[in-house]
Amino acid sequence: MDYEKKALEMHKEWRGKIEIESRVPLQSKDDLSIAYTPGVAAPCLAIQKNSSLSYEYTRRNNLVAVVTDGSAVLGLGDIGPEAGMPVMEGKCVLFKRFGGVDAFPLCIRSRDVDEIVNTVALLAGSFGGINLEDISAPRCFEIEQKLKERCDIPIFHDDQHGTAIVTLAALLNALKLVKKDIHNISVVTSGAGAAGIAIIKLLMAMGLEDVVMCDREGAIYEGRSHLNQEKQEMARISNKRHKKGSLQDVIQGADIFIGVSAPGTVSEAMVRSMAEDPILFPMANPIPEIMPDAARHAGAAIVGTGRSDFPNQINNVLAFPGIFRGALDVRASDINDAMKIAAACAIAGLIPENELTPEYIIPSPFDERVAPAVAEAVAKAARETNVNRLP
Amino acid sequence: MDYEKKALEMHKEWRGKIEIESRVPLQSKDDLSIAYTPGVAAPCLAIQKNSSLSYEYTRRNNLVAVVTDGSAVLGLGDIGPEAGMPVMEGKCVLFKRFGGVDAFPLCIRSRDVDEIVNTVALLAGSFGGINLEDISAPRCFEIEQKLKERCDIPIFHDDQHGTAIVTLAALLNALKLVKKDIHNISVVTSGAGAAGIAIIKLLMAMGLEDVVMCDREGAIYEGRSHLNQEKQEMARISNKRHKKGSLQDVIQGADIFIGVSAPGTVSEAMVRSMAEDPILFPMANPIPEIMPDAARHAGAAIVGTGRSDFPNQINNVLAFPGIFRGALDVRASDINDAMKIAAACAIAGLIPENELTPEYIIPSPFDERVAPAVAEAVAKAARETNVNRLP
Repeated sequence: MDYEKKALEMHKEWRGKIEIESRVPLQSKDDLSIAYTPGVAAPCLAIQKNSSLSYEYTRRNNLVAVVTDGSAVLGLGDIGPEAGMPVMEGKCVLFKRFGGVDAFPLCIRSRDVDEIVNTVALLAGSFGGINLEDISAPRCFEIEQKLKERCDIPIFHDDQHGTAIVTLAALLNALKLVKKDIHNISVVTSGAGAAGIAIIKLLMAMGLEDVVMCDREGAIYEGRSHLNQEKQEMARISNKRHKKGSLQDVIQGADIFIGVSAPGTVSEAMVRSMAEDPILFPMANPIPEIMPDAARHAGAAIVGTGRSDFPNQINNVLAFPGIFRGALDVRASDINDAMKIAAACAIAGLIPENELTPEYIIPSPFDERVAPAVAEAVAKAARETNVNRLP
Repeated sequence: MDYEKKALEMHKEWRGKIEIESRVPLQSKDDLSIAYTPGVAAPCLAIQKNSSLSYEYTRRNNLVAVVTDGSAVLGLGDIGPEAGMPVMEGKCVLFKRFGGVDAFPLCIRSRDVDEIVNTVALLAGSFGGINLEDISAPRCFEIEQKLKERCDIPIFHDDQHGTAIVTLAALLNALKLVKKDIHNISVVTSGAGAAGIAIIKLLMAMGLEDVVMCDREGAIYEGRSHLNQEKQEMARISNKRHKKGSLQDVIQGADIFIGVSAPGTVSEAMVRSMAEDPILFPMANPIPEIMPDAARHAGAAIVGTGRSDFPNQINNVLAFPGIFRGALDVRASDINDAMKIAAACAIAGLIPENELTPEYIIPSPFDERVAPAVAEAVAKAARETNVNRLP
């Protein structure tokens, strides 16, 4: 199917993918007097006395803002807030369909970090959580960090953490198949943007020690030129043997390749230079760093991509609906590493070891068990780390 | 019925009066590929090339933000953004029920005019219109004015203009009954806040010449002390005979009393001092400036209040759903005086002259003819004043 042609037709027909529905009857004067004036004064005054009641009497308990500035939309780059809206509306319908979460898109006409932070922070009382989306690096790191400091609701940049969680889930199952341990493997990335850095940080939180990240200039190591603040931090905590050179140089002998960069970055020869039973997650969209057939032909044991037309789709939709479902269920103030790792383990754990195959390491987006399992695990981790405000 | 007790119960049960619904199917991988990646890239790129397509491909064509800072909520005063949310959610369900408009509440944690303006302006690309609500005077005037300058979508402060429109509608029909002409009547107000000023400005746009506004210190005239900028403007354009004194003084001989102030401001003796067939709209909520029975006992020909339990409820819900429906239908860039007057005339015109009685000068909120009639009149006026961007 020509998805883009069909999508244009359907978007024209839909005239928006979301709408606001009333949850209350409005057929009589009594209905009006209860849902609106004069009755509505009672819940207003109750919230004024005890602000946490805003979670009881308004939709805040189930409501997430999907926030972008349109600066890094899909692989399209900086297309602006209005042009980013179809993606944000799409995200919102996925939130509802898979997590039962009410999500509303806000596209901000600014590229200024502090202006974006201020806009979102001033609206934080209207929502139960904030999903940041498609904001370019390195601004996305600063925006997320500043919002976490100013807001008492979870702030979650899905391009970083959603991708990281699902990648970790896929890796955990892939490692079971090739019988390797995350503590002993070596990982090489192509891409050191928001997703790449978040993936590696989460894998390190899970025990990964040996990792070299590459950007367009090759391996990232301490003291290299052209490193922004985030890459400098990664240079400090990764690549402990100070490897230098191109991706082609450092991928030799690696157990795992993780690609969040551009098409064609990895050749069959590079796959052949990796360790035994190499695992490749070339996730550039829509065209991966190496096509799955080519990777397998060159000896890849397991391949996962971002695409739905190949096996092992590493798709954020496996994570974000359940993560916010769980966070909202316990009124979490944060989505922390423990919750992210719990989500990854929950996704991975849905496939029993005896059902794992090189072409089935990760559940389908339509596996209805995923979001509830993630939500339960995330809620449990929130309680264990004391960021829950409901039992 | 004890509406407040019932409202508290029901709000606890509802857990929010609105929710976000998907308008698209999401049952298969193809569905995902059309509503989300990769297909969604097509409408994104189309909007990037032609930003007006955001009205075709996203919900902007039917979406209004209901914005408050919680500083003047109902008669409750400054209760803050979170406590204002039940009212805003209520407003949103009225928008959908009566106008088919998708409305979403945004409660802003700021009291600073420029900060509020900036927050709303940065989000203007996500909406087709902005309904300002329950923002205290005089900040509301400045916020509305600055937003009108910065945004290319309609900005409408309902407490001002919605109230003004429905008051004008009621007055037009009341004048028919007592056979007086708006050009020749004298009007006195109690209250010179946001609603009072907007009412008088709209009545003057419709031909009213003789009007004296009163605040707590009595008649407003040029040169009086304690006049903020807006009251100074009203002093210049109203009270041409420079009347001084209390409400009790200036109401003598008046044809019309309009109250947007506080309970008990008007006595029966004051009604008796008015002209023949006096019309009183004591709209303080929930307790009017004078109770309808007392006003009629003192000789009032026609009485209208804000309450649903007396005849002639002057209720904003008669206006705002149809106004935004009409504005959205022609993609208006503004809601101007011509559109407001058209709305008032459409509301008044729904009751044929031979059906008018002193107890029936204004349609019921549940009269299903109201919103379509208002929408049609508003769209026509938008076309006639060239603020429409669709035919």
